[in-house]
Amino acid sequence: MSALDWSTVFATRSERMRASEIRELLKLLEQPDIISFAGGIPDPSLFPVKAIRDAQDAILDDPKQAAQALQYSISEGYVPLRRWIVAFMAKQGVTCTIDNVLITCGSQQGLDFLAKMLLSPGDTALVEAPTYLGALQAFNAYEPRYDRLVTAGGNVTPTAYRDAAAANGGRVKFAYVVPDFANPTGVTMTKENRLKLLELADELDVPVIEDTAYQALRFEGEPVPSIMALDCARNGGDVEKTRTVFCGTFSKTLVPALRVGWVVAATPLVQKLVLTKQAGDLHSSTLNQMVMARLAETTYESNVARAVPFYRARRDAMMAALEKSMPKGVEWTKPEGGLFVWVTLPVGIDGAELLARAIAEERIAFVPGNAFFATDAMANTIRLNFSSPNEAEIAEGIARLGRLIERTAA
Amino acid sequence: MSALDWSTVFATRSERMRASEIRELLKLLEQPDIISFAGGIPDPSLFPVKAIRDAQDAILDDPKQAAQALQYSISEGYVPLRRWIVAFMAKQGVTCTIDNVLITCGSQQGLDFLAKMLLSPGDTALVEAPTYLGALQAFNAYEPRYDRLVTAGGNVTPTAYRDAAAANGGRVKFAYVVPDFANPTGVTMTKENRLKLLELADELDVPVIEDTAYQALRFEGEPVPSIMALDCARNGGDVEKTRTVFCGTFSKTLVPALRVGWVVAATPLVQKLVLTKQAGDLHSSTLNQMVMARLAETTYESNVARAVPFYRARRDAMMAALEKSMPKGVEWTKPEGGLFVWVTLPVGIDGAELLARAIAEERIAFVPGNAFFATDAMANTIRLNFSSPNEAEIAEGIARLGRLIERTAA
Repeated sequence: MSALDWSTVFATRSERMRASEIRELLKLLEQPDIISFAGGIPDPSLFPVKAIRDAQDAILDDPKQAAQALQYSISEGYVPLRRWIVAFMAKQGVTCTIDNVLITCGSQQGLDFLAKMLLSPGDTALVEAPTYLGALQAFNAYEPRYDRLVTAGGNVTPTAYRDAAAANGGRVKFAYVVPDFANPTGVTMTKENRLKLLELADELDVPVIEDTAYQALRFEGEPVPSIMALDCARNGGDVEKTRTVFCGTFSKTLVPALRVGWVVAATPLVQKLVLTKQAGDLHSSTLNQMVMARLAETTYESNVARAVPFYRARRDAMMAALEKSMPKGVEWTKPEGGLFVWVTLPVGIDGAELLARAIAEERIAFVPGNAFFATDAMANTIRLNFSSPNEAEIAEGIARLGRLIERTAA
Repeated sequence: MSALDWSTVFATRSERMRASEIRELLKLLEQPDIISFAGGIPDPSLFPVKAIRDAQDAILDDPKQAAQALQYSISEGYVPLRRWIVAFMAKQGVTCTIDNVLITCGSQQGLDFLAKMLLSPGDTALVEAPTYLGALQAFNAYEPRYDRLVTAGGNVTPTAYRDAAAANGGRVKFAYVVPDFANPTGVTMTKENRLKLLELADELDVPVIEDTAYQALRFEGEPVPSIMALDCARNGGDVEKTRTVFCGTFSKTLVPALRVGWVVAATPLVQKLVLTKQAGDLHSSTLNQMVMARLAETTYESNVARAVPFYRARRDAMMAALEKSMPKGVEWTKPEGGLFVWVTLPVGIDGAELLARAIAEERIAFVPGNAFFATDAMANTIRLNFSSPNEAEIAEGIARLGRLIERTAA
């Protein structure tokens, strides 16, 4: 027999799955002498290792809990963890029940499942430009068309969005945003713009997917109500009348590698998502969910209280370094929280080309902005992360970046 | 604004996701006086709780390992675990490298990802009748047509399969089998039939998905080489020339709720699956993978050696009880391993109707056979599980089942 030519059996959707450039890039960064602003991961010194160890030991030392923790379980997720999430949502003004909550393997899995349930090939997803690369990767598999959401004002009319979607043979299916300290920009949507987005979604009659990965990491200023909370409020507090889908995660507040996130939405959607979860991987690790339920109770608030000043200091170091070292013509965002700053270079400087020189000439790394655009890419942009490098590395690395941009612009 | 009618925004594929009847059924079984043959889960007394606790403590007590265990990681999976799987595959005659291995959240996620990568809507998946319900649930989301694989001889010609697929506007994309102690039948494919399946796949030029969930749980008789091993052997040992996709799991041999399974295949497919994993949930829990890597080293063989006689005793009790209690006209399989027996009732007795009476009149439960058929359903069948009830419950429950069938047939 002859060997199988695998390219002949892949589905059309599989062609949309491409390795991200970032991924290739991150391999480079194992070289120890590089100062990297390319990551997007929490600092491991903030992981509550002892609390995790204690929680696991307590669960596994109790025979009844151990049997439950290691056995197959329901697809919806561990009930006490869903109850904690119900209380968490209540604190931000969203009254729901555990029937509105699905536990996922990180919010990434929530994004994948939502796209799977909502997108037929050719349908339109509304996303910001730039937006979270992982969301684009999740959505791509379902072969959407993208249209651009301009959340700081300037959206086109609902009719224009609808007509453009119809011209592509599909419909607008959802709007996706990271409203707080967005990845990659660090920018936060105002309350007014959140309400405008809901109005747009009303007119298009589509859901709004609210990715709250960084919501808890606010360094300063007043929290803005979540889109889900605003949607509840305008519906008399009835979560069943909302069109918002709230994606949450413990990855940035407690620990990423237990892979525990959640989705909160009206029950018709959650019921569909539960079927998707069942077909997709049966359920999330029971042990990890039980550990997370204990951590959430005992450690969530104290860990957030520890993380906020820790990352604020790095954000401050980043702001000071940019102020000191960036040549004229370079602009950057001033994030009130999160992990990222978005830098706009003088027109004509390409972020990807700059990265090649940055690694070779200055031993620094970042992510070229291009990767974050589904539409309307701006090549003269880069994303800088400030959660991984420490204050001294930030000062030194940004000084090197400034020199490089100066040489490049010259 | 008016509330969103969610049914207007679901993708067509979402309509294929239906709650399994089994799921609804299992809720019933929380009633403690029911003897249940409906489950399919391992006995928790076999979970290596202490080994898991020790592994976790060792990892979390080492600061360097703890930081790795709790941090984001690569989508392919934890390298030492993939190395163990390479050695495991070598023992069954499959020489591969870690580049041929992807770690998944149980083999269920492997099935979902494979369908996602291979099936365009309308393509044909070849499955046995009956087959694993969870596989059908995973595949359904990608809107395939099904055609029937008759692995014990009697397959139609490759041309007939191909023509039927083309008539539906698609192509045959893969054959899926559970060759060892299948769920739901308990039947094992002979070596001859495995080779015939590979020949059929050659002629159709499609992959064979080999689901080995129960492979290690052999109670008696000689192991049959895996399809992957046979495929390697006929290709001079070159895994890159194989068309088989081996789906493995630790769920039945060690513990299900860490959600660790794997896929082994030629690298062009594994590379696609890695992108799917990245888009789907970034990576499996690092901590769980590290724990499983230690368990695999220290506990896999001893735990299998403990599970085999444990389940053999229950299988023996099941065989003795069926022999003693089944009225004439009832037939059942004689599994050499695994967790299930497949019972064929006299024609005219419907498994679903029998279940309703079984719960009401005899306080016993099982799964009606209908659920396991993508095509050619046989209503007069039921699946009995023998891994959850103990020997006394098996004797009593099967006696009740025998009485019920006698009354029903009369």
